[in-house]
This record gives sequence, C-alpha cells and structure tokens, in this order.
Amino acid sequence: MTVRFLDAMLRGVSQVFLQNNPMSGLIVLTAVSWGAVAARTPQAAAGAVVGLFVGTLTATVLRFPSAAVRNGLFGFNPLLTGLAISIYLPPRILTWVYLVLGAVVCTLITRAIAAILDIVELPVLTFPFVLTTWLLLLAAYQFTGLGNRGPGEPALPHGPGAADVHLTGAFLTAGILKDISEVFLLGNWVTGALILPALLITSRWAAGFAVAGAVVSTFVALGLGADATVVAGGLYGFSAVLTAVALGATFYHPSRRRVPYVLLGVVFTVVVQAALGTALGPVGVPALTAPFVFVTWLFALSQRDPA
Amino acid sequence: MTVRFLDAMLRGVSQVFLQNNPMSGLIVLTAVSWGAVAARTPQAAAGAVVGLFVGTLTATVLRFPSAAVRNGLFGFNPLLTGLAISIYLPPRILTWVYLVLGAVVCTLITRAIAAILDIVELPVLTFPFVLTTWLLLLAAYQFTGLGNRGPGEPALPHGPGAADVHLTGAFLTAGILKDISEVFLLGNWVTGALILPALLITSRWAAGFAVAGAVVSTFVALGLGADATVVAGGLYGFSAVLTAVALGATFYHPSRRRVPYVLLGVVFTVVVQAALGTALGPVGVPALTAPFVFVTWLFALSQRDPA
Amino acid sequence: MTVRFLDAMLRGVSQVFLQNNPMSGLIVLTAVSWGAVAARTPQAAAGAVVGLFVGTLTATVLRFPSAAVRNGLFGFNPLLTGLAISIYLPPRILTWVYLVLGAVVCTLITRAIAAILDIVELPVLTFPFVLTTWLLLLAAYQFTGLGNRGPGEPALPHGPGAADVHLTGAFLTAGILKDISEVFLLGNWVTGALILPALLITSRWAAGFAVAGAVVSTFVALGLGADATVVAGGLYGFSAVLTAVALGATFYHPSRRRVPYVLLGVVFTVVVQAALGTALGPVGVPALTAPFVFVTWLFALSQRDPA
Repeated sequence: MTVRFLDAMLRGVSQVFLQNNPMSGLIVLTAVSWGAVAARTPQAAAGAVVGLFVGTLTATVLRFPSAAVRNGLFGFNPLLTGLAISIYLPPRILTWVYLVLGAVVCTLITRAIAAILDIVELPVLTFPFVLTTWLLLLAAYQFTGLGNRGPGEPALPHGPGAADVHLTGAFLTAGILKDISEVFLLGNWVTGALILPALLITSRWAAGFAVAGAVVSTFVALGLGADATVVAGGLYGFSAVLTAVALGATFYHPSRRRVPYVLLGVVFTVVVQAALGTALGPVGVPALTAPFVFVTWLFALSQRDPA
Repeated sequence: MTVRFLDAMLRGVSQVFLQNNPMSGLIVLTAVSWGAVAARTPQAAAGAVVGLFVGTLTATVLRFPSAAVRNGLFGFNPLLTGLAISIYLPPRILTWVYLVLGAVVCTLITRAIAAILDIVELPVLTFPFVLTTWLLLLAAYQFTGLGNRGPGEPALPHGPGAADVHLTGAFLTAGILKDISEVFLLGNWVTGALILPALLITSRWAAGFAVAGAVVSTFVALGLGADATVVAGGLYGFSAVLTAVALGATFYHPSRRRVPYVLLGVVFTVVVQAALGTALGPVGVPALTAPFVFVTWLFALSQRDPA
Repeated sequence: MTVRFLDAMLRGVSQVFLQNNPMSGLIVLTAVSWGAVAARTPQAAAGAVVGLFVGTLTATVLRFPSAAVRNGLFGFNPLLTGLAISIYLPPRILTWVYLVLGAVVCTLITRAIAAILDIVELPVLTFPFVLTTWLLLLAAYQFTGLGNRGPGEPALPHGPGAADVHLTGAFLTAGILKDISEVFLLGNWVTGALILPALLITSRWAAGFAVAGAVVSTFVALGLGADATVVAGGLYGFSAVLTAVALGATFYHPSRRRVPYVLLGVVFTVVVQAALGTALGPVGVPALTAPFVFVTWLFALSQRDPA
C-alpha cells in the first residue's frame, strides 16, 4: 500500500463531511474508532476501514478517473456502507463477505450515479451509500445466513412516543454533538466533539455551519413535537449537519448572505427526515443520510440560472 | 401588493387547470371558497390563498424567471400545498407556520424539478405540490405538534368495500361535478359547477375535455368494480379530469382526431389512481394528483419524434 | 397479418432473452405454451400471444420507428405484461379487456421510457413490462371486477421459512432450468430446457451465460440462507439469468475477461431480488424482472468512459 493510496483513503474519510484533507480524515477516523469501541461494536470501525479500502482499491483497479480516486471520492460511500453493514448485521464471517461485496458494488454504483448526475451537474453526495445499504439491509431480511436485526421490526407508521425528557443545557449540548457523530451512525458525544477540530482544520465555515445545522435541527424537531429521546440521540440532526455544510460551505462560496437559505435547507431536512421515517417504517430500513441528499440536490437545482 | 402581483396570483389559480387567465382564476377561487365554507373547513380557502401568495412572493423575491412568475407558474403548486395542509392537518398556529414553510419550499422544488424536466422538455404540472405535500404529511405523523389526522389510519392494501349504491342520473351528475371539484380536494358539486364556466372563458375544448374526463373516468371506475361511494365522491375522477384537459386541450392543438388518445389517457389515469391507492396505503398518504402527472408525462413522451 | 408482421412478433418473443431471431422466438413460444398448459393455466400462453400481437400492432399503427418495430422491440414488453396479467388475475372477460388495455399502454410506456433513456444511452430492457404490470396489479386490488389474487396477501417483511429441503443433483438441475423458465413466470424445467436451444441458435455465449447465471444465482442464494423451496422454484434465478445474458453476451463483446464482471452482476442481482421481495411485500406485488433491469443499468453505466 503506497503513501498515495493511504492519502486517498484518508481524504475519503474527510469526504464524508465534504472535505478533502488527509489530516482531517485521520482525526475523524480516530473519532469514529473511539465511538465504535465505546458502543461495544468495535467491528464498526473495522467495517468502515474495510469498506474504505475495498472502495478505493476497486476504483484504482478499474481505472476510474484518477483525480477523483486520489481525492477520496470513491472511498467515502463504501466506507459508510461498511460501517452500516457491520452495525446493522450480526458479526459473522458471512457478514464480512457481504460487506466486501457491498463495498465493491457501492463503488460501481457511485460511478453509475455520477454518470447520470453529470447531466444536471450534481454531485453524488452519499446517495450511493444510501442506495447500496438499503438494498443490502432489505435483502438481509430474506437470508437466514445474515439475520438482519435491522433497526427494529418493520411496522406501519405510528406517532411519536410520549417521552417526557428533561431539557437541560448539558442534555442539549450532548444531543448537538451526537448530531455530528450520527453522521457515522454512532450516538457518542465525544466522537462529535472530536470531529469538530477536523472540520476546523479545513474550513471554519464548515465547522460553524455543522454546529448551526445541529443546533437549529434540534430546536426545530423539538418545536414540532418530535420524540425528545430520538432528538437527543442525534437522529434528527445528522442529515441536517451535512445539509448545512454542503449548502453553506461546500458548493457555494460561504457568506453571511447565504445563512437564511442554508437555515431553510436545514429546517426542511428535519421534515424530510421525519417523512422518510414514516415512509420506510413498513419495510424496516432506516433513512440513513437520504434527507441530506434529497434536500441538497433540490436546493442546489433551485439555484440554477435559467437556460 | 401591485395589480401585476395580484394578476400573477389569479393566473396562478387558473393554472391548476392548465389555463392562464385572471378572470378564470377569480371564478375558480370563488368556487373553492364556496366549497371550503360548505365543508365547514373555511381554513382551506385561507390556506390556498396563503400558499398562492407565499409562492408568488418567493418566486418574485428570488428573481425566478419573470415571465413564468407573471403567468402564475410559481403560484399553483404552493396554492394546492396550502390547501392540502389546511385540510389534512388540524387548525393550529403551528400548522400555519408549517404551511408557510411548505409553500416556500414548494416554490424552490418547482424550480428544481423544472431544471431537471427541461432536459426532456416536460412541464412540472402539479408534481411539486404532490412531492411537497407527501413529505409534509408523512413527516406530520412524527410530530405531536402537528398531529396528522391523515386520510385515515395507515393500512395494508385491501379490496373495495361492498357498498351498494343506487345509480341514478342525479347521483352520477353530482359525482361528475365532484370529479372537477376534487381537483381542489373538495367534494362539492356546486364548486365543480362553478369551475366549468371558468374553463369555458378560456377554452371550450378545455371545458369539454374536463367533462369528458369526468364522465369517462366515472363509468370506467364503476365498470371495473371500484367502490361506488368512492367514485361518487369524485375520488376516481379528479386526476382524469386534469389528464383530459392536459392531453386534449393544452399541450397539443385540440382536434377530434386526438379524442381516442385522450380517452386512453383518461382510462389509464383511473388505473394509476387505484394503483397508487394500494401502494400508498401502508404509509397513510393520499395519491393527490400524482396519477395525472405520471400519465400526462408518459403519454407526452410517447408522442415524441425519434431523435 | 403479413409475413413481415409475424416475423416482427416472433423476433419479439426472442427479445425477452435479448435475442433477435424469429426461429429462436418460435422455439421459446413453444416452450412457454408447454409450460402454461402443464401448469393448467393455458390462458397464460394466450395472454402472452395477445399481448405480443397488441403491442406490435399498436407500434405499427402509431408509426413508431419502423426498424425497432420490425426487430420486435415493441413486442416483448406487452408479451410479458399479457402473460403476467393472465397468470395473476382470474380468467374472466374483464381480465382480457384489462390485458389489452395494459398491452396498448405498455407499448406507449416503452416509447416514453426509451425517450428518457436515450439521454444516457441505456436500453429499456423489461422495465416497461415491470412498471405497467406493477400498476395493473396494484390497481386490481381496488376493483372487484378483477379480483386480484396476487402473489399472496400483502404483508410486512418477514424472514425466510425454515424449509428443510434435501439438495440433490436432480433437485438442483431442475431448479436451474426453472430459473430460465421463470423469466416467463413459469416454474417448469421442461420449458427451461426447451429455451436453451433457442439461445444456442443465436449465440453460444448467450446460452452459456444463461446457464452460468442460473447456476451461480442458485448457489449464492442457498449460501446466503434463502428459503430453499423458493430457490428451487427458480424465483431467485430468473433475473440473474437475464443479467448474465445482458452483461455477458449482449451489450458488450463477449469474452472470458468479462466473466468476473458478469458474475458480480449475477451475485448482486440475487441481493436486489431479495431486497425487492422485502420492499414490495407490504403492497403485495412481485418483483418481476426489476432486479435484472436495475443491476444491468447500474453496471452498464459504471462502465462509461468519463466525459
């Protein structure tokens, strides 16, 4: 494994947060490993690294566009796929075979979706991860060898629980940091706190918008009456964090004038998060970062100059 | 509010029926207000006007293409979104905040979807309304602050009821007028009767095809064995009415030669209406005008000359 | 009916397996008729022929591109639609009316989807059949006149049964031949055996990849722990057979170097087959050949040279 390959892998880690910096990637990887071990699922960190490695290797072997490979653009979707599979499916040898298959296919799907999105000049974001992981988890319900534990039993949509949570400053701060951590499917506030400096290295705007996305999504979800324990777990904020970074600090030149527009995107991401929660309930798969993907695409398209 | 802005809003009302005429819009708005008051949901008329105003204002402020704004093309989708939200969600202050958010986002989504559909030269029709409203209603199930009453509890698909309805001429006539009224989610035959002159003002063909769409869809649905009470409520015909107007009198030069083609579109709209009824049952949202959108797009695409 | 029209119809039959040969089509039609009669559903063979005839006629009357009509490209999707409707819905006069309507609309949808896919230079494959049949079957649940028996009652996703099947050589061979036969929704090993020479006539590679797709999908499904009775019925292999023929012997020049790539496509088709089984469970429709379509599109797009 050459230094160049390792560099592409670390950049791939940072690409989850739409950054392109190997040092930033190293910090994020450390944060994720901490969170995985703390949650007693160390296999999640291993799954992430295996996915990242397999994806980057597949893109290299198949001679996908080399600049994109070097910048980690074929690494972050397989990374998230590997992470999700090792969290949602039980730790068995067959799960690892399934994970490697998923990482390879996710890399091909990244390329395929990029070919379609080129027409409208949109980035793939984390959609290849979402699509691949949905298919892998839905399929696992049919295979005894994989025994999908899933995110709970499939169910028809139902209203929020009547949880009575005491809202304190510490509670909210932990929830906001978990919003950042849940981008990696981990509900660990230390992981979230460690990711912030990784963003500060590359862009103060990115770090600022990430925190703003977490704060705003938390209050919007609570204000609409979402289940407070779900909000506190970071499950209403992780897509909103990514929407804020994407619309605020990545695809457009960051400025204060863009703040209202970014906040509207964050608010709508909370709505789409809840909507997908209802829509996916009957088939028993989680929304993953689909709300971030859909809202970012829609908002980016709505800014186009007329032809 | 200038006269020009008011003109754009009234044209937006008429655009729901694919027309572009402020007088026609004024009559339709009167008809909708009548139906909303008669159904003891006056907030529906207010929701429609608020949606229309917010949408037109958003498009003006964001400097969306001015000819499209003036012709009401950014007004009719937020109008329908406002109408649907004020009908399906309970009347509370938070619902109005949610409605305004939805109208703003619907306007952005209109622009986004237009950017994609430009590639295949298709109009957005009411798809931005359908997409936005589906997301808002699905999300409302997760928020106690909004308390989605929805169109009944979510359920797995089930066969039609064994309703034994006596088919009389008066019954059928009322059902046909309700087909037209249900375009605005109101089952009121007077509303339907008032909308017809609004169509006659702009195009006799449009009025004729609207009635033909309502009549044909009613008999096709009854002939296939649909629940007669649902048919009589206009719920099998409102998308068919729009399909007939779109394929017969809007996107192509109207002529008798096109009649068989339009009727085929109407018949297939009834099938898609029933199909979406089954498919959306488990997640508890209504089909809205999605059958009209899908059938009109498919039929319009099937008429293209080969490249 | 001219010889030229008959030739177009027979080529249409062979197009189901992505071939273009009237003799091949005649053999396949014989195989399908055998399977339909053996399953005591002779109406399935009639439904296939009616669909094929109506589709080819519709495309001819509407003056769709004549080379495509002559090569059977407007015949195979209505053929499969007719077959599916006559298998899933009870044999009544109204079912035949519904079938003819479906075949006409499927032909228009074929043209519409081709217009969209032209942009990314992808073939329609069997997607028009899948989309039309899904809509017709979903709708039939709402119509007492059609009384959709469907593929069992709609249900939330559940794990595989604990079937204890004795795996013998004869059992596996029959299952592999049924994989080929199930492309036509028939679980008959003789039908599968008769289709193989039809492929050999046009391309040894096609026949070889069809068998390889069936064998590999069978072992992959069993290895992952799929329900062995479902596997033995050919229900995990028919899409995989088509994926193998498409990726191995149709859209690319066949060669040994492509074998690993084709096998990966076959393995992923098994995963998508299971995933759609879970996802479509709540609405009560079968996956049909959607797994073949999605995987073939994704893999074909992933091979594009960068722009």
